[in-house]
This record gives sequence, C-alpha cells and structure tokens, in this order.
Amino acid sequence: MSLQEIDALGLQAAIAQAKKSYSEGGIPIGSSLVHHPKGSTPKILAASHNQRIQKESATLHGEISALEAAGRLKAQIYRESTIYTTLSPCMMCTGAILLYKIPRVVIGENKNFVGGEELLKSNGVEVIVLENEECKELMTKFMQEKPEEWFEDIGEYTPGTD
Amino acid sequence: MSLQEIDALGLQAAIAQAKKSYSEGGIPIGSSLVHHPKGSTPKILAASHNQRIQKESATLHGEISALEAAGRLKAQIYRESTIYTTLSPCMMCTGAILLYKIPRVVIGENKNFVGGEELLKSNGVEVIVLENEECKELMTKFMQEKPEEWFEDIGEYTPGTD
Repeated sequence: MSLQEIDALGLQAAIAQAKKSYSEGGIPIGSSLVHHPKGSTPKILAASHNQRIQKESATLHGEISALEAAGRLKAQIYRESTIYTTLSPCMMCTGAILLYKIPRVVIGENKNFVGGEELLKSNGVEVIVLENEECKELMTKFMQEKPEEWFEDIGEYTPGTD
Repeated sequence: MSLQEIDALGLQAAIAQAKKSYSEGGIPIGSSLVHHPKGSTPKILAASHNQRIQKESATLHGEISALEAAGRLKAQIYRESTIYTTLSPCMMCTGAILLYKIPRVVIGENKNFVGGEELLKSNGVEVIVLENEECKELMTKFMQEKPEEWFEDIGEYTPGTD
C-alpha cells in the first residue's frame, strides 16, 4: 500500500468519526491513528472524535480521543505512525503529537481553524494539509449552527455573547 | 487570601493527588485547577492525578486529568485560574494550558523532568517553580522503582530495555 493510499484510508476513518459525532449532536472533528511501519500492512490503531458534547469533556478533542482509544503504546509504535485529523490540531493536540513524537500529521482542512502547525513543523513533524472539501463543509456548517460550542472547544469567547 | 496562600493550597491539593496515585500503584503526578478571580474566594475547581496505570490511559496525565475533572468551562474561568502540578508539564499538558489560556502555572518541581516551560513563558504564561522537596522525593522514588512506566508516560524508550 502506498503512503498516499494509507493517507486516504486514515483520513476516511477520521471523516467517518467526524460525521458520527455530528449525527450525535457533537462537534464534528474526527481523528485516527495509523501504524504503518515499513514493509508491514498498515493498521488503524484507533479512530475517534471530539467528545465535548457527548461526554461533557474538556479534553477529548478528536486527536486526544483517538490517542486515548489507542491505549497504552510503546514509544516505537507512535514513531512509526501517522495521525489523521479532519481539522488543524489545536495546541493541546499539537502538544500530544509532540509528546509522543508522531512524525506525520495529515490534516483534512485548515481553512476553518489553524492550530499548532508551525510548532509541529519547527519540531521536525511532517504536516500535510489535504484541503478536503467534505471536512471543510462539515465544519463550516457546525460553526454556523453552534458557534458557542465551537468557541468553548478552543477556549475562546463567543463573539457577541460572552 | 494572598496569592502565596492560594498557591500553597493549590499545590497541596496536587501533592495529595500525587500521593493517592502512588498509593494506587500509579504514576505519582498530581494537579489541581484553582479559580481565583480578584475579590472572590478562591475555589478548587478540580484536583486529579495521572491515570496511565489506573485507567490504562495514554492521555490522562495529571494536568489533563484535572482539566477533564473540572468539566466544561467558559473561556473566562480558565483565564482567572492557576493550574498546579507536582511536576513540570509535558508538551501535551503545556499545549492544554495554552489552548485554554490559563495565565499561571505553579510547578512543584522540575529537577526530575522539564517539560514545556519555555514555550509557556514565550506565550506570556507566568511559570513558577516551587522546588518542593516532597514532590521531588516522590517522583525520584517512582522513577527508580518503575522506570518503564515513567518513560512510557513521556513517549520515550526505557534506556537499556526497548
């Protein structure tokens, strides 16, 4: 399987999670963690989504939720993996990627929000933005429908209401 | 209550959690989040500890665990709070502090591990290291007793075993 095919697989798993979250009334950001050591079949270790609404959680963003679902892993596993996320990772998720030294981050879109991409790059992490239309449309729709939940999720005031 | 008294209260709550975690066989890192807007009585919003062992968790470090226990909060609350941690915060926890724009971080000790203190400072966060002997001794003891769990917690190889 080519890296491009792995990326398509990983992003699709993340998008499926984002849609699932949206259908549950949650924030539609999904993520997956794919282990793909050279010469082995890639394996989706976990895929999950933002859980702010579903679990009243302040920390289970999409990426944190995927890392949590993947469970306890040896350092080496993270270093042979790519993390996929439908939206540019916030500083918390950026920090988690740096903590575990995940070398590649594939992002569905960064038009609706730009997180810690520069910090990732300056630490040697490969950052790929796919400009996926499905990710963009889903997030744009949610941000218009529930701005307060979106701004809460990134620790910001909702313009005009707070 | 003076800021110094609030800090003593917050750190003691974090230390109590670190000791609790140690007594459960877990990683002895504790954290608390204290809301102390000017002119009001300070309130401990949450105190918790690292849950890697107890919950088989890859993301519930002390600080993340405290933020999670505090639940969903408005942006303003974080901005009037201090987060306390018995050990210098790793990059993930540093990122979480930056995400929520918590303006003050009080650290029990940073002799056993230095996390994202410089990144916090360069983003305008006030970082105070108390060099607390109790924090230092507890962490040193744990790192000697269970090095593999400690290194796993920071995404590192255990020297000589991996």
